[in-house]
Amino acid sequence: MIICDMGDTVKQLAILGSTGSIGQQTLEVVRALPDRFQIVGLAAGKNIDLLAQQIEEFKPRFVYCQDKRAEAHLANSECELLSLEDIASHPEVDTVVIAISGTSGLSPTLAAVKAGKNVALANKESLVMAGEIITNEAKLNAAQILPIDSEHSAIWQCLKGEPQPATKLILTASGGPFRYYSPLELHTVTVKQALRHPSWQMGRKVTIDSATLMNKGLEVIEAHWLFNMPFDNIKVLIHPQSIIHSMVEFVDGIVKAQLSYPDMRLPIQYALSYPERLPNPQLPRLDWSNIKDLTFKEPDFNTFPCLKLAIEAGKKGGTYPAVLCAADEVAVELFFSQRIPFANIAKLVEQALEEHKATACPTLEEIMAADAWARKKALQFISGDN
Amino acid sequence: MIICDMGDTVKQLAILGSTGSIGQQTLEVVRALPDRFQIVGLAAGKNIDLLAQQIEEFKPRFVYCQDKRAEAHLANSECELLSLEDIASHPEVDTVVIAISGTSGLSPTLAAVKAGKNVALANKESLVMAGEIITNEAKLNAAQILPIDSEHSAIWQCLKGEPQPATKLILTASGGPFRYYSPLELHTVTVKQALRHPSWQMGRKVTIDSATLMNKGLEVIEAHWLFNMPFDNIKVLIHPQSIIHSMVEFVDGIVKAQLSYPDMRLPIQYALSYPERLPNPQLPRLDWSNIKDLTFKEPDFNTFPCLKLAIEAGKKGGTYPAVLCAADEVAVELFFSQRIPFANIAKLVEQALEEHKATACPTLEEIMAADAWARKKALQFISGDN
Repeated sequence: MIICDMGDTVKQLAILGSTGSIGQQTLEVVRALPDRFQIVGLAAGKNIDLLAQQIEEFKPRFVYCQDKRAEAHLANSECELLSLEDIASHPEVDTVVIAISGTSGLSPTLAAVKAGKNVALANKESLVMAGEIITNEAKLNAAQILPIDSEHSAIWQCLKGEPQPATKLILTASGGPFRYYSPLELHTVTVKQALRHPSWQMGRKVTIDSATLMNKGLEVIEAHWLFNMPFDNIKVLIHPQSIIHSMVEFVDGIVKAQLSYPDMRLPIQYALSYPERLPNPQLPRLDWSNIKDLTFKEPDFNTFPCLKLAIEAGKKGGTYPAVLCAADEVAVELFFSQRIPFANIAKLVEQALEEHKATACPTLEEIMAADAWARKKALQFISGDN
Repeated sequence: MIICDMGDTVKQLAILGSTGSIGQQTLEVVRALPDRFQIVGLAAGKNIDLLAQQIEEFKPRFVYCQDKRAEAHLANSECELLSLEDIASHPEVDTVVIAISGTSGLSPTLAAVKAGKNVALANKESLVMAGEIITNEAKLNAAQILPIDSEHSAIWQCLKGEPQPATKLILTASGGPFRYYSPLELHTVTVKQALRHPSWQMGRKVTIDSATLMNKGLEVIEAHWLFNMPFDNIKVLIHPQSIIHSMVEFVDGIVKAQLSYPDMRLPIQYALSYPERLPNPQLPRLDWSNIKDLTFKEPDFNTFPCLKLAIEAGKKGGTYPAVLCAADEVAVELFFSQRIPFANIAKLVEQALEEHKATACPTLEEIMAADAWARKKALQFISGDN
């Protein structure tokens, strides 16, 4: 952390997954508030061109790129090439933004937490698969997990200043593009339809997870770990307008909610600026002359079995959530490549969970083994080779 | 404050206005939580029978009754008869609940604030008429004003734990029983219709003020003083379901809201238990399987001129808000006794404000003089004697 002329602090950020949807929106926030944030580390997967542009603009000291061809590109720059874990735990980094999607977010998240960093967490899988390990390490190392998911950010903001824990969390869900569909209608939906999310601009994987409601199920497990809340006290509520991002009920029955237009830059900026709030003219403000109606309905667990599967896997714990995540990742890829229909995403995940022999209180190695088992299994199901 | 066996504190309460709607609901909360609250003072106006029952049940040490016939009744009890101001400032009292409606709440509020008490404030007039004096005295004497109005309680709860001030307050309003009426339709409404509030159970005066939206205007002025917010940053929004009790917008554009069923016991209990929240099985919890729809619309200042009159009087300041309150009190009484039609409540208030020669930065005496002037004037208008 650097203190600048105005007495404000300049936070040193590393963004892991800088070329993805959350990564790019994080850089938009940094671009809007250059006096408050400085990029010291960037890490990307395969989008070498965009990473090169980002390096040019933000001049990070440390860089990682999954695609090894990038090394030649970067040889002439002044960046030091480091591993994801080394960037996540580097002493010059104050806040690590984990914007990598999927299982590969787990290891750098753990590295950041062990190094006692502020961890602005957008990656769902790390908490879903290894929530107990990560929250324990965070406690041990005084790391702070700052949620970026809009729902968890909403809950976190509603809990702020409350001396007592909440009694219930109410996670809202847009319901995705198929919220009014019957199970039969879901059989014929295409990738293009599933990628057309009604309210949020997000990455491809999470957009499909929103359409199956798997995303909401993963968020229930995340909320369980982030806020130490029993599963039975976490409720999911369909709210198509995506204005109320989640709610918290307290012991006296009073409920607090956080509202905004669906724009990921808002929770991203809050996680970066926490505990402060910063003015940013680029962020949208609710215009109440245009908001006539906020509606709510209970989720339909039969039409969207992924939601139920996720909550059950969360309740069972052990290696079940890792199998859920891994099987879903494979299933969504298979749907993208049109090898399975939409409705079979849930079926494939269900089959993997059914056949899994779980380990209670797993180590990280056991979690990764369950992940590998589930991926293999899911592919076997589809090839008929089980 | 007394520390009880369980280590919890027992707060010593005085309830001024104990036989009114807020007073009775405060006693319901105390009845439900007898280990946490003890009644040391009760004060009532004319309802001697109910006051006698309350004394029998809660055994306060200090009592006040406006009706002097009560003195004979109370002669045999163990209560000490004191003035409103003496109860409000008594060393044995921790929290004073000001549940007196109208101008008579002003003097005991000031006494409580000067004595550095926690002041659970339901009386609107004291802040509207003398907001500057009362908030200054509260600061000087380290008194804390704990709002009981559901809107201000909501704002107060949303601000909790936020290190920076809000940028905008959004006060919701049910809109009252006539929210869908045209100005023409308002001409023929009866007292009975005006007393039929769609969502809140309240006293008679505030129910009429809700129907004219004067109540919301008074609340805007209160919010200005309670939260040190410029009038231009306070917005009124019609929300007929009365589930969102108000909202706060922060510098980053994020909005927080507080929700519950419309039940005054919730904000009353919060003001009493603050900074804690207490479980109370008698209080209702939101049932999201029954909440389908929350709607919003902008207020119609032409149909409900009282809202505009109040905000203008608040902006002008000085003795204008006192004139607004006093003229409204007279006008509502005249409507009750069927001497003026509903629509003339606003006209009478407007006339008083127009003819008033205001004093800037008034003393308490000047405020009371403006109050007396406005009452006399309002009655003169109606007798045609101006």
